[in-house]
Amino acid sequence: MNKLNYLKANKKYENAQICIFGAPVDQTTSFRPGTRFAPNAVRLESMGLEIYSPYQDKEITSKAICDLGDTDVFPGNVTKTLDAIYEQAKQIVTDDKIPFMIGGEHLVTYPVVKAVAEKYPNLRVIHFDAHTDLRDTFFGEAMSHATVIKKVADILGDRRVYQFGIRSGVKSEFVYAQEHQFIEKFSADLVGTILPEVKDHPIYITIDLDVLDPSIMPGTGTPEAGGLTFKELLSAVLKFSGLNIVGCDVVELAPEQDPSKSSTIVAAKLIRELLIMI
Amino acid sequence: MNKLNYLKANKKYENAQICIFGAPVDQTTSFRPGTRFAPNAVRLESMGLEIYSPYQDKEITSKAICDLGDTDVFPGNVTKTLDAIYEQAKQIVTDDKIPFMIGGEHLVTYPVVKAVAEKYPNLRVIHFDAHTDLRDTFFGEAMSHATVIKKVADILGDRRVYQFGIRSGVKSEFVYAQEHQFIEKFSADLVGTILPEVKDHPIYITIDLDVLDPSIMPGTGTPEAGGLTFKELLSAVLKFSGLNIVGCDVVELAPEQDPSKSSTIVAAKLIRELLIMI
Amino acid sequence: MNKLNYLKANKKYENAQICIFGAPVDQTTSFRPGTRFAPNAVRLESMGLEIYSPYQDKEITSKAICDLGDTDVFPGNVTKTLDAIYEQAKQIVTDDKIPFMIGGEHLVTYPVVKAVAEKYPNLRVIHFDAHTDLRDTFFGEAMSHATVIKKVADILGDRRVYQFGIRSGVKSEFVYAQEHQFIEKFSADLVGTILPEVKDHPIYITIDLDVLDPSIMPGTGTPEAGGLTFKELLSAVLKFSGLNIVGCDVVELAPEQDPSKSSTIVAAKLIRELLIMI
Amino acid sequence: MNKLNYLKANKKYENAQICIFGAPVDQTTSFRPGTRFAPNAVRLESMGLEIYSPYQDKEITSKAICDLGDTDVFPGNVTKTLDAIYEQAKQIVTDDKIPFMIGGEHLVTYPVVKAVAEKYPNLRVIHFDAHTDLRDTFFGEAMSHATVIKKVADILGDRRVYQFGIRSGVKSEFVYAQEHQFIEKFSADLVGTILPEVKDHPIYITIDLDVLDPSIMPGTGTPEAGGLTFKELLSAVLKFSGLNIVGCDVVELAPEQDPSKSSTIVAAKLIRELLIMI
Amino acid sequence: MNKLNYLKANKKYENAQICIFGAPVDQTTSFRPGTRFAPNAVRLESMGLEIYSPYQDKEITSKAICDLGDTDVFPGNVTKTLDAIYEQAKQIVTDDKIPFMIGGEHLVTYPVVKAVAEKYPNLRVIHFDAHTDLRDTFFGEAMSHATVIKKVADILGDRRVYQFGIRSGVKSEFVYAQEHQFIEKFSADLVGTILPEVKDHPIYITIDLDVLDPSIMPGTGTPEAGGLTFKELLSAVLKFSGLNIVGCDVVELAPEQDPSKSSTIVAAKLIRELLIMI
Amino acid sequence: MNKLNYLKANKKYENAQICIFGAPVDQTTSFRPGTRFAPNAVRLESMGLEIYSPYQDKEITSKAICDLGDTDVFPGNVTKTLDAIYEQAKQIVTDDKIPFMIGGEHLVTYPVVKAVAEKYPNLRVIHFDAHTDLRDTFFGEAMSHATVIKKVADILGDRRVYQFGIRSGVKSEFVYAQEHQFIEKFSADLVGTILPEVKDHPIYITIDLDVLDPSIMPGTGTPEAGGLTFKELLSAVLKFSGLNIVGCDVVELAPEQDPSKSSTIVAAKLIRELLIMI
Repeated sequence: MNKLNYLKANKKYENAQICIFGAPVDQTTSFRPGTRFAPNAVRLESMGLEIYSPYQDKEITSKAICDLGDTDVFPGNVTKTLDAIYEQAKQIVTDDKIPFMIGGEHLVTYPVVKAVAEKYPNLRVIHFDAHTDLRDTFFGEAMSHATVIKKVADILGDRRVYQFGIRSGVKSEFVYAQEHQFIEKFSADLVGTILPEVKDHPIYITIDLDVLDPSIMPGTGTPEAGGLTFKELLSAVLKFSGLNIVGCDVVELAPEQDPSKSSTIVAAKLIRELLIMI
Repeated sequence: MNKLNYLKANKKYENAQICIFGAPVDQTTSFRPGTRFAPNAVRLESMGLEIYSPYQDKEITSKAICDLGDTDVFPGNVTKTLDAIYEQAKQIVTDDKIPFMIGGEHLVTYPVVKAVAEKYPNLRVIHFDAHTDLRDTFFGEAMSHATVIKKVADILGDRRVYQFGIRSGVKSEFVYAQEHQFIEKFSADLVGTILPEVKDHPIYITIDLDVLDPSIMPGTGTPEAGGLTFKELLSAVLKFSGLNIVGCDVVELAPEQDPSKSSTIVAAKLIRELLIMI
Repeated sequence: MNKLNYLKANKKYENAQICIFGAPVDQTTSFRPGTRFAPNAVRLESMGLEIYSPYQDKEITSKAICDLGDTDVFPGNVTKTLDAIYEQAKQIVTDDKIPFMIGGEHLVTYPVVKAVAEKYPNLRVIHFDAHTDLRDTFFGEAMSHATVIKKVADILGDRRVYQFGIRSGVKSEFVYAQEHQFIEKFSADLVGTILPEVKDHPIYITIDLDVLDPSIMPGTGTPEAGGLTFKELLSAVLKFSGLNIVGCDVVELAPEQDPSKSSTIVAAKLIRELLIMI
Repeated sequence: MNKLNYLKANKKYENAQICIFGAPVDQTTSFRPGTRFAPNAVRLESMGLEIYSPYQDKEITSKAICDLGDTDVFPGNVTKTLDAIYEQAKQIVTDDKIPFMIGGEHLVTYPVVKAVAEKYPNLRVIHFDAHTDLRDTFFGEAMSHATVIKKVADILGDRRVYQFGIRSGVKSEFVYAQEHQFIEKFSADLVGTILPEVKDHPIYITIDLDVLDPSIMPGTGTPEAGGLTFKELLSAVLKFSGLNIVGCDVVELAPEQDPSKSSTIVAAKLIRELLIMI
Repeated sequence: MNKLNYLKANKKYENAQICIFGAPVDQTTSFRPGTRFAPNAVRLESMGLEIYSPYQDKEITSKAICDLGDTDVFPGNVTKTLDAIYEQAKQIVTDDKIPFMIGGEHLVTYPVVKAVAEKYPNLRVIHFDAHTDLRDTFFGEAMSHATVIKKVADILGDRRVYQFGIRSGVKSEFVYAQEHQFIEKFSADLVGTILPEVKDHPIYITIDLDVLDPSIMPGTGTPEAGGLTFKELLSAVLKFSGLNIVGCDVVELAPEQDPSKSSTIVAAKLIRELLIMI
Repeated sequence: MNKLNYLKANKKYENAQICIFGAPVDQTTSFRPGTRFAPNAVRLESMGLEIYSPYQDKEITSKAICDLGDTDVFPGNVTKTLDAIYEQAKQIVTDDKIPFMIGGEHLVTYPVVKAVAEKYPNLRVIHFDAHTDLRDTFFGEAMSHATVIKKVADILGDRRVYQFGIRSGVKSEFVYAQEHQFIEKFSADLVGTILPEVKDHPIYITIDLDVLDPSIMPGTGTPEAGGLTFKELLSAVLKFSGLNIVGCDVVELAPEQDPSKSSTIVAAKLIRELLIMI
């Protein structure tokens, strides 16, 4: 049997503390498609990574991680696709493990946060993204990559979502964000300022890779100039080290949009740092 | 106002005999996406084409053709997307014009054939494709690029669909095709043999570009080795010259899968020949 | 009729305040070609942009903008090609509107500045570029992408051109720039220092996209390492907000040199910010 | 655990009749590298294939096939790399199963034929290739992708190797082939003529994918114009149906040389047909 | 000094019988540019070729060939560029050697034929191409890749040009060709029929690589579906073996349009066969 | 004879002060191959560079530089390949010239440093890289791109190697570096601090281009996020201006991994600055 796990994520489910799974979905993508290829692309490129992080002076093998493969996807049926993700996340959370999802378009965050929030009602969501994703509907649909954070906020309630790196959206989304939650536009310099608010709560981190500048992450559906460098993002993310992270996802990698494959390699490294940090 | 019509398709709707429209859809695509980019890519590359066909010794300007632009697409909602295509086709047919659709995934053929068949109950469908597309459901969905010809056959009834170039499918699809309609596997040499059967009926031609060999058409969602050469396809298609063609589509171009862009140029030329022939 | 305008640039000419047109020219390109594809590529990718700028808290729909399509190009005849651009710009300026050109190689700036300077003799030109473009001749030709700013300076006279981000040229060009006009090498930090000099004059802004670092703008004819980040360029450009900008161009995008298409998306966003700012 | 098998090759080793393994080697590649990526690329793209072959009217699930994953590769040490392949093939052959290797550069054929010939001293090798691969040494090395068939012939003795599609080599290689074995230049029309000679012997089939024309198989290290179409190759290969095939390999796919990925899809389909045929 | 000759074309000029030179021109290109990169791309890829032709059973080293490098190109000045080519060809012809040019766009054929025809007034031109290239002017210019064969015909007089593989042009070009010279549409099957007419005259062969089908030659400016296979072209070309070939060119390779680089490899092989044949 | 030198490196060997040579090697590459194409790619792209550096206000023609072409490479035999490089470097050093190598994979640095250190026993090596390259063995081999700096350190002794920009390796490599030499992780800000230690010694600079961030240098075998910008690297490198640099190399460019070719253009510019500085 040929195995294709993310780098050293080779524990059995029973023994795992963190459970990786892929959600190879791009069903509501309105612009450049291809997120469906992300999970296996990340797994393949992770072979080129070292197990040691010089940033955290720790090895990924210090964590018990399994890779459950990908959830089922139902072309043409968004509801069934999201249900499958929810079931996967629900099982992991129920078994007191941490779900770590590799997307897929951003919509896949919704069912995972739903499952996690059912267990941790006090959940805070940390959201790195170029886009607000706060529309109520998109092309008339409530369930969309462009509405996903609004749906998350609807579950959690006001003041539970913290957004960083945001630089695109319609005006009303920015107004909503400023009135109902925390938003930092254009950068992620203020992460430190929110730590006191979130440090005593369970935390879910969702990273839309387009928060990175297109120079380093062209391999995504809607690249948006003026983003973070990798150093800036990594530095912001590692500020959550030691907190109670109960779920995480990295989404919106569209590997084939970047023929140099660097985007996938960058995503694979970011995932390594997240896994070591949790 | 910047216009982007298919080559010389610049008549007003009122005066047009053939109405081009794009259906930039890839919503049930299960493998490689990108058909959403096809209509505009074809229009752009058509600028490199001559208006004269040495194959038919005729110019495209001898036809009155308009280009209506693209139908609306609703990400995440297949039904609304198909409805919009149906409305567009219905209007064209009602106004006694010929719809010529540039897909889009193959599913878009269904609403057009539906509209056309409502006007021409005796319709025959000529289908060039690598795949049977005769499943009843695909991943549980009735409406899919893999079921579309079955849905078409359900509308038209037995013995109304003629398939050429077919070389992929599940076994039961081949059995169905052999029992209920006409199928030629691997090539399109037998077009001449069906002409007597179809020549007195209105004809709809649907060309899934993957009927061509991947050598000449890599830019499609599911390339399938062992296909037709361009010469073979053109020769087969031109056999319908002079018959009563009441609708046509060319689908499944995924321009960005072929970075050389040749696939798009090939599709644009095929469309020119079809338009001149109709 | 299928329209392909830049994002919401859908006003009629009569009502427009700003007139976009494309100049799809690469006739004197000495290195990597492809700028001919830029205008339509920008229009196509602009579909992925929001109409709202969080940088300026304003929507592009607050401006009256039309898109006139592309000027004619005469392969093998530079003079006729430049004449066509001049005619287009002249008409726009004569009608008291603002020309906004999407190049094309940088040479296309010359006829537009000529037309604009005929109306505004006191014109100042703000020039963002990696290259000085100050040669007298290039391969023996006076009209070239490598001489264009010298030709502009010849029209305007000394001290009327301000160059930023420059990091390539022959030595004599740098000497000329230092003696006859303003030049900032390697960055655009000094934009603020020239505002007092230019704020009371009509201003033309010409942006050669290779002023950006190749990390964010590989899709250009002569990428030159050590350039500006997008944030740096946007920040520099927005300093001209509120001044009397009477013309603008964004040139040297060669879309196909960047197969990720990010370069085009970046250019499209920069253009949005410029249009909103003017 | 995330599995990545070739299409439905999911039997346990104990129950398998055919054992797929990958040899991701390109260590003596002299021209365009990348064969190291072939095995996993084929596995990934095989997901897009149907299990049914309309050519043979049979499903791949009618065979008991396992996928053992890839052999170890030792960068910088050809000998150890070949030893690992030999050990893998030897085990399979010893257990009375059929090895089916996905290369890698062509040199990987040598250790497999060695292992197979130890069990079947009467072995005949059928060789589809653009190149003779009959050098004694290449850049001074005996073990090379350019010498591999000569090394195979040295094991088997005269008149045991049959070459088809050959169209490149040094003159002495062609002379050798004509004197010591069977060679058909430029095509594979003569397969039928050798069947009487080989039909009572165990047969090993090695397919260097560059036997195909670069139009259909650009994704290989040394594309050579004037090759076979897919139909021609498939037709030639299927002539061995029903014979005693005791080993097989498909080599020299370099997936990333063909950014359209069609080459990989073509290889995956050819492998399906071979597996169903054996 | 680092040398980059075409495969084994390393004789001194004094001793050479055939003189290769490159004309890296794309100055009147109206569609997809990039022919400027062809000569060096062909030289680089020629390293992967064998010196022996199994088609002709001869080695390229049996000919005395030099590679003179590229002619100068003057961006923005077509006349000076063509003059430089003429001077180069004139010198070679004057010294009783055979010019072999690697283009560049097809316009570069004109000055070479001019130089050759001055020495050989009875010259016949054999023209393989997808396009007639018989316009009188193109975008108002007499000198263009689209007029080049008309200009050649104007030098030589009626009935001196033989065209094969033609499948694109305006109607009047086809009419002209039929009235004033020889034209075979769509294929090159009739080469044998013209040999009696041309065999006693000096012959110039010009091959526009787009005569090949885009499946095998996507790397060209205006790919045109329905072309020759490599086998068909090679077979047609080799029919001129033994005749009095006094000049030759291979033009319109645009290497970067084909990211697989196969087009360049195919061109390099065709050039080898031509050089061995002459 | 067609010459392909690096930009203006056209002196005769006898008169040269700096001798460029290429080492087109990727024989121990474990991840993404392609460094074999680097030297000629750099030479080709160097044609687009100016001879003048505005950073150093000096022209490359102020140096006497020759380009010796590439060393021989022996596919499948690492030892012979390294020996050929050693011989080339040894000759240059013996003739009191400065070797400037364009790699190839990083392993090629070893034989050059060996040759240089034999002449300058007090040699200091300045190492810019993302990776420590300090393994003792890699896949069991002592000679590898992953061990090369350890082998260099073994020649030179403790405290002779200074590493900058390092951000990947196994833990023991970082421990070794901290105990036996100088290492700066993640950046190259501390170059100034080591100048006092090295300024009185002969210096060898080796630049693995992956020290740059993948945003600007995706064209390398193992891109590693979080690297230097071009400005940071250039600024660090130019701090060595005026010191006694006796050898230099720039390695690990894999041109085809970056289809935009920007990586090669960036490498070519860096090499220009190094050559002017030495």
